[in-house]
Amino acid sequence: MGGEPVAKTYKLNPLDAAWLMVESTDTPMHVGSLTIFSLPKNASPDFLRDTVASLRQHRNFAPPFNLKLVSPKLKGVLPAWIEDHKIDLDYHFRHSALPAPGGERELGVLISRLHSHPLDFNRPLWECHLIEGLENNRFALYVKMHHSQVDGVGGMKMLERMLSSDPEATDRLPPWAVGRGGGSARPRAVKAPLAERLKSLALAQAETLPGVIKALGEVVSETFNQTDPAHAAPFVAPKSILNRKIGGQRRFATQYYELERIRRIAKAAEVTVNDVFLELCSGALRRYLDEIQALPNAPLTAGVPVSVRPADDGDSGNAISFIIANLNTHLADPLKRLKAIQESTNIAKDKLQALPKAGINNYTMVFMAPYILSLLTGLGGRTRPMFNVTISNVPGPREHLYFNGARLEQMYPISLLSHGQALNITVVSYAGQFNVGFTGCRDTLPHMQRLATYMAESLEELERAVEKQQHKRRKVV
Amino acid sequence: MGGEPVAKTYKLNPLDAAWLMVESTDTPMHVGSLTIFSLPKNASPDFLRDTVASLRQHRNFAPPFNLKLVSPKLKGVLPAWIEDHKIDLDYHFRHSALPAPGGERELGVLISRLHSHPLDFNRPLWECHLIEGLENNRFALYVKMHHSQVDGVGGMKMLERMLSSDPEATDRLPPWAVGRGGGSARPRAVKAPLAERLKSLALAQAETLPGVIKALGEVVSETFNQTDPAHAAPFVAPKSILNRKIGGQRRFATQYYELERIRRIAKAAEVTVNDVFLELCSGALRRYLDEIQALPNAPLTAGVPVSVRPADDGDSGNAISFIIANLNTHLADPLKRLKAIQESTNIAKDKLQALPKAGINNYTMVFMAPYILSLLTGLGGRTRPMFNVTISNVPGPREHLYFNGARLEQMYPISLLSHGQALNITVVSYAGQFNVGFTGCRDTLPHMQRLATYMAESLEELERAVEKQQHKRRKVV
Repeated sequence: MGGEPVAKTYKLNPLDAAWLMVESTDTPMHVGSLTIFSLPKNASPDFLRDTVASLRQHRNFAPPFNLKLVSPKLKGVLPAWIEDHKIDLDYHFRHSALPAPGGERELGVLISRLHSHPLDFNRPLWECHLIEGLENNRFALYVKMHHSQVDGVGGMKMLERMLSSDPEATDRLPPWAVGRGGGSARPRAVKAPLAERLKSLALAQAETLPGVIKALGEVVSETFNQTDPAHAAPFVAPKSILNRKIGGQRRFATQYYELERIRRIAKAAEVTVNDVFLELCSGALRRYLDEIQALPNAPLTAGVPVSVRPADDGDSGNAISFIIANLNTHLADPLKRLKAIQESTNIAKDKLQALPKAGINNYTMVFMAPYILSLLTGLGGRTRPMFNVTISNVPGPREHLYFNGARLEQMYPISLLSHGQALNITVVSYAGQFNVGFTGCRDTLPHMQRLATYMAESLEELERAVEKQQHKRRKVV
Repeated sequence: MGGEPVAKTYKLNPLDAAWLMVESTDTPMHVGSLTIFSLPKNASPDFLRDTVASLRQHRNFAPPFNLKLVSPKLKGVLPAWIEDHKIDLDYHFRHSALPAPGGERELGVLISRLHSHPLDFNRPLWECHLIEGLENNRFALYVKMHHSQVDGVGGMKMLERMLSSDPEATDRLPPWAVGRGGGSARPRAVKAPLAERLKSLALAQAETLPGVIKALGEVVSETFNQTDPAHAAPFVAPKSILNRKIGGQRRFATQYYELERIRRIAKAAEVTVNDVFLELCSGALRRYLDEIQALPNAPLTAGVPVSVRPADDGDSGNAISFIIANLNTHLADPLKRLKAIQESTNIAKDKLQALPKAGINNYTMVFMAPYILSLLTGLGGRTRPMFNVTISNVPGPREHLYFNGARLEQMYPISLLSHGQALNITVVSYAGQFNVGFTGCRDTLPHMQRLATYMAESLEELERAVEKQQHKRRKVV
């Protein structure tokens, strides 16, 4: 009895656990980050090989990189982490290469493939790929993790801790040695045999899951029981190809701009940077869907996650709320679209501010609703969607960062999809740049890279419209 | 009614269908081939890029490359193929690259990864990867297919049709345009609506599956109900680490020799080439397992597939029987081991010859027994194994072959594993070479590449032993 080893298990909060519940072959619930680096000047030809070899030396695994599921086959019912003391690093850390010419196209193809492979649930839920062969003396790092262990903001913090603002720093560690920091995932040392531990976990879970589901129902019906016409309420979104059942294969495309271009428009039009971003998404979607004869008459709506993480919370677990914005894709004029989007987001944000703290907790859970409802009812992709597309804006580092002398040039988020949600557009701001990642269902969105191209053209169009308007105003004054 | 489109469905025979029944996350039932080519002399730097672009032009898909499952989620119960008229070639045909230095090690790592990913059951069940960056001006082609559509011998025939013995030939097509040839997968045009078609397929299946299972039971108990001590009967194999539950990740290693070295030993020792191969496997396994303290006291046994395909059968479907050979891993002396192995395989082959044709059909089904039993009972990897390891010998082309001017240097088979069968060793003979592929469960077999090294050392040891014996004999004469 006394000789039995102490196994540390870590209980998940219901929100984190929900990502494990809804995991399926068609809807893997992992997220990724793609970071592109320049080789240091005068780097030796063996720089990357040496880097890989040196990173492989790090065999200390920080949470969550050291945690695996207690019972992979019951992950939806008995979600709990346990420390893995025999991690097969060669499995998790992989050295890959691009075929010639190694441009953004070849990189996009490889990332699409890597992000389409599910994680192995018998191991800690992460992969890290160092990718060589990127043209113009660059290389890339792709890190894949499960959303039950990290969200966009938490992942960003982790990345920032991994990098340095000092180009000369040579002490930077690989992601698995850095971890998410903080300590709000509380270890619970349990001495009981496995069967009893599982039983007690199941009981704890049974107490909380129905609570979550009940809360969801209440929040969905009460919080959104309002009739303001400019507000985009959930479940009033039009049906669209973006909201059907999805397959398991992904497409990934990227685009980046100078943040200053977005700021200039926001200032001139007296809207937020995020409103401008929503307008660019709207313009790109309008054209892309129109070309494939799939633009609904009614305006598309977007679910826009908003972080509600307290500033002092170092843990990378999930803490997201969201608003629903009307993308006004029925409007052809970019400026009118921008103003209408602003009106919609203002109302949504007012509602969020007005909720008491306890209300925000419940409101937060609504973000899970499409996933949980689709799991419970099998209706995902068959009913009227809660919203048409997920669009996120994650604030990233403001200054240039380095990894052992290699400068970080761009960073892109790669997101997850669910039945009824075939497209996610997420932007990360970094060192004066706006880095946009498009994650889509391969079968739903043919030629998805066109969305990235059209977004660039939407930006130019909006710039011209704003300039024209300012010109007019100056004339009037 | 009359306007309803005619959907061609193709029924599977029970043996082919069984591979779909036993497919799981831990036991994907696909097989692969790895072929390594030299670039043609004076090939332009764009040769591979041009090759990829030119292969992508071929949009005619020959069976089985044009066939997908009628109902992927019911693949085990309602196995039937239907023609896919909207094949996403960019999904199936992939251009990949190796990181520097691009040696056999980097290639082995990439193939291990690619072979660990399951096929997408919503699409035709194949992938084709052209891999650049292999050192010494070489490139590789990895083709993955489901075992329900192709076996080792059929795959070999397909490969031979794809290649040419003429180095100047430039008319060679990609595998998906070549197909398996022959015509024994009979299309059955059905006009009934989908639901009725599924129902009739289910009925047809219900008639045959219990028949297969009943036959299996009879064959297992009757055919092997004998007591010859040199014969390795099924289920008398010792327990070993090779016969536990497996995970979904694979390791792949290769080794090749001059076929003449094997022939010389076979001639001198008066055994078959396959007996020598079994001895090399035995020697390598004995040392590898001994080093990790996992060599059983009792001798390991091997399941050795034997093709029973009629010579005029062009179809690449499955037609395999097998014998069980005693590997005599308890014997330290390589020559004694070789003779004991020969005695065991002779008895097994005599039994196979003596069976009437109908008997061979049933005997054939026994090969499926470990897989089907493990599926029905969930006991795979928990009971005494039917045999310890699968060892195959597939005859390949005798002369050098070319793909549009690129010479085929080596060809390796990459096999499937099941619970209770964590290792497969398959050899293909090609143009005077013996090309050995080792496919193993990643978690069961650490440092599996050592098996390949030890096999090379076993060959040298056996050569020395044979030479010593001949020397003795000459003295006596």
